[in-house]
Amino acid sequence: MMSAPAFARTAIIGAGLMGASLARALAQSGQSAAIALYDLSPDVRARARSLGLGEIVDSLAETVHKADLVVFATPVGAFGAIAAELAPFLHEGAIVTDLGSVKSAAIAAIAPHLPADAMFVPGHPIAGTEQSGPEAGFASLFQGRWQILTPLADPRPDYQAAVARLGRLWVALGSKVEIMDPARHDLVLAVTSHLPHLIAFNIVATAADLETVTDSEVVKYSAAGFRDFTRIAASDPVMWRDVFLNNREAVLEMLGRFNEDLAALARAIRWGDGAALEQAFARARGVRRRIIEAGEDSPAPNFGRDLEKG
Amino acid sequence: MMSAPAFARTAIIGAGLMGASLARALAQSGQSAAIALYDLSPDVRARARSLGLGEIVDSLAETVHKADLVVFATPVGAFGAIAAELAPFLHEGAIVTDLGSVKSAAIAAIAPHLPADAMFVPGHPIAGTEQSGPEAGFASLFQGRWQILTPLADPRPDYQAAVARLGRLWVALGSKVEIMDPARHDLVLAVTSHLPHLIAFNIVATAADLETVTDSEVVKYSAAGFRDFTRIAASDPVMWRDVFLNNREAVLEMLGRFNEDLAALARAIRWGDGAALEQAFARARGVRRRIIEAGEDSPAPNFGRDLEKG
Repeated sequence: MMSAPAFARTAIIGAGLMGASLARALAQSGQSAAIALYDLSPDVRARARSLGLGEIVDSLAETVHKADLVVFATPVGAFGAIAAELAPFLHEGAIVTDLGSVKSAAIAAIAPHLPADAMFVPGHPIAGTEQSGPEAGFASLFQGRWQILTPLADPRPDYQAAVARLGRLWVALGSKVEIMDPARHDLVLAVTSHLPHLIAFNIVATAADLETVTDSEVVKYSAAGFRDFTRIAASDPVMWRDVFLNNREAVLEMLGRFNEDLAALARAIRWGDGAALEQAFARARGVRRRIIEAGEDSPAPNFGRDLEKG
Repeated sequence: MMSAPAFARTAIIGAGLMGASLARALAQSGQSAAIALYDLSPDVRARARSLGLGEIVDSLAETVHKADLVVFATPVGAFGAIAAELAPFLHEGAIVTDLGSVKSAAIAAIAPHLPADAMFVPGHPIAGTEQSGPEAGFASLFQGRWQILTPLADPRPDYQAAVARLGRLWVALGSKVEIMDPARHDLVLAVTSHLPHLIAFNIVATAADLETVTDSEVVKYSAAGFRDFTRIAASDPVMWRDVFLNNREAVLEMLGRFNEDLAALARAIRWGDGAALEQAFARARGVRRRIIEAGEDSPAPNFGRDLEKG
């Protein structure tokens, strides 16, 4: 059942997995009367056009023209330049948001460029797959997923109304909305997302570089654990480069803790301390149980899609 | 369609995920006329009995009595004591195998105890789930999975026939059979299985120990990457303790390589070397592609079961 559109025109900058999914979700839900999509790459624009993702526009200025919602859906590293270029063309009082995986850096990159009447409400959907590109987008990506909003300390009376309006949009797209402080978001996600991805990228690179074990042996017996890391490590390299460059302090802090703990495990292996190993491993089980109990273990909504591709 | 039973009586020592799955697979396929199951734990034996997994026997001697196939399905650390205890009761010319994740140590633990007429053919099915206990067993666990056999340098003329006979059994259970040198197996699996599990155990323990981020925050936003590690880290702590204690050299070597590579990534993050990060991340994508192309990306056959539990 469709309600009246929440926005007259949504401008999405970036037509990769996230931007394409948002375009499809907005179209399916009827939450935006018009959807304009832009990508820096002419090739991606052409693919988005042939996928029928919305009105594909060839300039930033034209994309944001008359848009009451503007969404940054590119890698975080491109946010500053895009904000500077589109700011003069923003519709008066437009709500501006982003889908970036780091929030303090996203705010620092976008906020200074925006006109005084813009309502900037940074956001981060905890949703995604290891696929990228406009073809990877699908309407249900955000369903049942957390959408974290990290509002600014903005004293304007209508700013809170803008936050609530954007929150309602995400709820209409099936997300669970959470409000967080930007710095807190970056610390928590450094643990639950950035460090796991760094570790996954690293172990896959380590395995690929060994002289003692061949690539084909690694591939052949990858089901024994390694394969799960390769799925995580297949995520977009540019997006992840920008995450690490823009959440440096938190990631390096978490990595330091990880390394200390790993050194202790290595020492237990070297000295044959089975009790220490068993104790550490048993604790990890408890975390898994709590995730299942909290209902945070539901498979990604695109699981069937993955199976078909597999 | 069932063929004639390949074995008259199979004795399975250990009624956890692996032993219970093998019992179910043998029963379903009709490859063993009788199936006897033993576990060191009286509680596990009682649960196996109530699950109808086969003839549940209360002593090792009775379990292997008249068995023409004996399968070690306990954690590797228990192999030596079990071998010593059951050896006097082995049926003449029985084929003895194991399902252990390390092969050199399994051979060192079992072989010295066996009588001269026994045919010891070590094995390792690249199959499993993060579940454990007899309830976790299911008949299709081995279907489409690799079964690695690491035969001894045994000069007896009928030894190769025993290897072939055991190989045919695994093929009948739906596995793809591969012959490998034991030391090579331990090196390859250190990369594709042991190191990934160690890393997963470690990151979950690190996250659980942080003072700056709460457990509930970690659980809540675990879908962003961390969750996949918790699934791997939920595997049986005792089994994994024994893997690391019994493949120490190879695991520590691989861990050393992993740490070197991780230090380089950390340095690239600290100094803002985006090109180095992007290059490392893009390489990981190639490994994923090769796994998919090799058809090694099929989901575990129990996937539906996980969903129901989730």
